[in-house]
Amino acid sequence: MSILISGTVALDSIHTPTAAHNDLLGGSASYAGLAAALSGPVHLCSIVGKDFPAEHSELFKGKGIDTGNIEFADGRTFRWTGRYHENMNHRETLDVSIDVLEKFAPKLCPAAAAAKVVLLANMSPDNQLAVLNQLTGRPFVIADSMDLWINIAREGLLKIVQRSDLFVINEDEAKMFTETSNLVTAGWRLMDMGPKQVVVKKGEHGALLFGRGGSFFATPAFPLTGVADPTGAGDSFAGGLAGHVASLGRAPCFTDLAAGVVRGSVLASFTCEEFGVRRLAFVTAAEATARLDSFRQFTAW
Amino acid sequence: MSILISGTVALDSIHTPTAAHNDLLGGSASYAGLAAALSGPVHLCSIVGKDFPAEHSELFKGKGIDTGNIEFADGRTFRWTGRYHENMNHRETLDVSIDVLEKFAPKLCPAAAAAKVVLLANMSPDNQLAVLNQLTGRPFVIADSMDLWINIAREGLLKIVQRSDLFVINEDEAKMFTETSNLVTAGWRLMDMGPKQVVVKKGEHGALLFGRGGSFFATPAFPLTGVADPTGAGDSFAGGLAGHVASLGRAPCFTDLAAGVVRGSVLASFTCEEFGVRRLAFVTAAEATARLDSFRQFTAW
Repeated sequence: MSILISGTVALDSIHTPTAAHNDLLGGSASYAGLAAALSGPVHLCSIVGKDFPAEHSELFKGKGIDTGNIEFADGRTFRWTGRYHENMNHRETLDVSIDVLEKFAPKLCPAAAAAKVVLLANMSPDNQLAVLNQLTGRPFVIADSMDLWINIAREGLLKIVQRSDLFVINEDEAKMFTETSNLVTAGWRLMDMGPKQVVVKKGEHGALLFGRGGSFFATPAFPLTGVADPTGAGDSFAGGLAGHVASLGRAPCFTDLAAGVVRGSVLASFTCEEFGVRRLAFVTAAEATARLDSFRQFTAW
Repeated sequence: MSILISGTVALDSIHTPTAAHNDLLGGSASYAGLAAALSGPVHLCSIVGKDFPAEHSELFKGKGIDTGNIEFADGRTFRWTGRYHENMNHRETLDVSIDVLEKFAPKLCPAAAAAKVVLLANMSPDNQLAVLNQLTGRPFVIADSMDLWINIAREGLLKIVQRSDLFVINEDEAKMFTETSNLVTAGWRLMDMGPKQVVVKKGEHGALLFGRGGSFFATPAFPLTGVADPTGAGDSFAGGLAGHVASLGRAPCFTDLAAGVVRGSVLASFTCEEFGVRRLAFVTAAEATARLDSFRQFTAW
């Protein structure tokens, strides 16, 4: 089944304790799209500026990603500059240039609007809602977000949460959103906000999945002895999960989503191994399957 | 098979954001002993003062724990006072009164010295070495420690690590001990120090198990929506793990240890539910089994 992914496409400049790179392909839709494309055809909906390098568009197309719903607007592409500190878990935003993103008004072609799996990757809740309102295919909707929207667009975000089949959020944001320091409680409080399922991403510690009727799943992360750049790991996670759902060809049950969470963790692990999308963009289906197999092995008891 | 557990027996005063209790039964050997006693007969080796309440000794005996290797010395029992902050992950030591612990010189009766599973629960590496040197049964040796010993007794601790079949340490301590911020790297560096296996405890995030030849196991923790008091969770984990090994009746393989890690997580989860040993001391074998069963369910995919 085809997947619609809407979010940001950006040019990222990233500093880590050991290296720095400028104007890398980034943004929530880029990572999620590349991760999902391993599982099926993807429509990417986003906006970039006229300065967006053609090589990035070619990369998307080479992965079978439809770029027809990416608007090429006058102005500069959204840029983000960030720095990671020694433990790679804490990141600091050094600079954000919104540029064309400010005028983003998602517009879907009929094929994209009819997608059966939709990932509202991280962008403003208003933009997420604009996508939701154009959907025609009664899809399975996965929505991701970030702390910024909890702080400045809580009401809009709540609407997205309510209309999600699966709401995805990271650990610290889940605690902030639900005002508790207990992560399991945070998950259940998010469920009380109305989504059908919730995933809490915990980075190097894995993820938790909450479902109706007390359904619960927990998994560790894929173990990495080194992290070059964790940017986009959460987006890759969401994309890998969306890809798994699309590969089923039917509505997912809770156990399907658990397997999707594991696949998401595996895709995120590839992303962390190199800067930007440099590893993710070259993952093969066989590599992803091999890592899933070893995941199964090292979690068996 | 019988289990020898050597460590501290203490009287703890614990403050959390919502409650405070004084002179609770505590110490590494108390938690570990009660957790292990669900799986088989335990010899406890420790030291207390003449002020040690008889009810605590009776509690041990009622659980089938041999207290014959606990020395009742002149002076006061070791006391620890600590405070947990809002998120229950960070704790602050407010007061420590070493008292009789200063003169602890572990002495094992022949039956304890011949135990087939030995847990060197957290205490000074010198005391752990004194126990090791009295063992006669070629046992499976599990050793736990804490940041204090990494800081002030590194050389002694390294000897313990080398002689361990399974060295247990928590996340922050593993990073500190091996001088890396990557936890997986920390685990492998600990393996390089010479033990046969290493467990890194991650509290609410579960645990990692490292073995020779690249063997690896990861598990999330048992999910708790509330934590009353996490004191002793790590000791309960080690005790539950030791109990599982003893219940096998043979030398454990890597997969056995993985199952032991899960049992350890389950026992630790009970400990967190109430202050001190108030929950752990009343866990039944059936309750532990039921929690293991649900653990298996919520980690399946």
